[in-house]
Amino acid sequence: MQPDSLPSHILPVPLPKAYRLLNHGPTVLVTSAHNGVRNVMAAAWNMGLNYDPAQVAVVIDRATLTRELIEASCKFALNVPTRGIAAQTLAVGRVSGREIDSAKHADKLAAYGMSTFFGNDPSVPLVEGCAGWLECTLIPEPHNQQRYDLFIGEVTAAWADSRVFVDGHWTYSADTPTELQTLHYVAGGTFLSIGAALEVAPASAAP
Amino acid sequence: MQPDSLPSHILPVPLPKAYRLLNHGPTVLVTSAHNGVRNVMAAAWNMGLNYDPAQVAVVIDRATLTRELIEASCKFALNVPTRGIAAQTLAVGRVSGREIDSAKHADKLAAYGMSTFFGNDPSVPLVEGCAGWLECTLIPEPHNQQRYDLFIGEVTAAWADSRVFVDGHWTYSADTPTELQTLHYVAGGTFLSIGAALEVAPASAAP
Repeated sequence: MQPDSLPSHILPVPLPKAYRLLNHGPTVLVTSAHNGVRNVMAAAWNMGLNYDPAQVAVVIDRATLTRELIEASCKFALNVPTRGIAAQTLAVGRVSGREIDSAKHADKLAAYGMSTFFGNDPSVPLVEGCAGWLECTLIPEPHNQQRYDLFIGEVTAAWADSRVFVDGHWTYSADTPTELQTLHYVAGGTFLSIGAALEVAPASAAP
Repeated sequence: MQPDSLPSHILPVPLPKAYRLLNHGPTVLVTSAHNGVRNVMAAAWNMGLNYDPAQVAVVIDRATLTRELIEASCKFALNVPTRGIAAQTLAVGRVSGREIDSAKHADKLAAYGMSTFFGNDPSVPLVEGCAGWLECTLIPEPHNQQRYDLFIGEVTAAWADSRVFVDGHWTYSADTPTELQTLHYVAGGTFLSIGAALEVAPASAAP
């Protein structure tokens, strides 16, 4: 499960734990490719849907190039970006892959200087500078896609940055470098960054 | 839209902005009621689905009492809990409403000492100590409910705590009292609390 090309701090996440990469509600980058065309877009509307089999849900607007690529290839990846690439995350959420000047740039990833690598699937790019990655196969649900722009995927492989995700748990603390914090979109140019872990003892029922 | 019963710091959120209460990925409390039976459960798997009409998605396991109440009443509310009620949020995510000792407690809300109020709908309780509230009507989608435990709702009213949500934007900063921070579930007894807002300028495409 560990391609040779991955940096040593990127470790595989067991599939039944893959939902935990999304559980705390980060904005994600959706990457996709078909017939040599690649793209990336930002998506705040995403969530885990199941853990066994590992499934996720994400909303992909019908006007996007990403939508066209996913519907053609039936594959996509969710990348969990960090503060280190907040400026690019905001930009790729605003500009369509269709608007990229092909005389200047191969695609949106290239236009915004986003480096990529491959996990298991040599066709879907994964974005460097993220804290988690989920490779997914589309589970076709035409009604959901057409009525709600809602896409469901089965996770086929996942990885995380071991500096912030260990043994199925995010390890954010006051000491975590800020550039490794995940991004949680509000609106405009504003994100909330994730804060430190909080250990909670459950309340007891009143006697 | 502002019931007389609401405290003055709880203000209505226009429906097209209601998704912003979920956009940053908080764990929510799902409240529901039918025929005099009330319940509450925690749900990390939730997201905005549309803004006009305002729609949300949430995963409700088939074993839950909440599932039974929502399928009977076709109504529910999403409440966005804060650190101030983290212990209760964790507890109501672990204990089923079916396990509450009816000789001791009226329901799960009562068992864990959670105070409630009403928004527009006098049948669905809203939980005090939250930072946002969305009253929803179920959009029946039997295939999604049965295959994915996936429930879709149309938001019919929403409110937020004006100490942390103003004009459609969360206003978290280093000065926000920690007890008003939203909760982002990891696993076990661990939440991440939301951090401060980060103003980002979008990256420019390379020349």
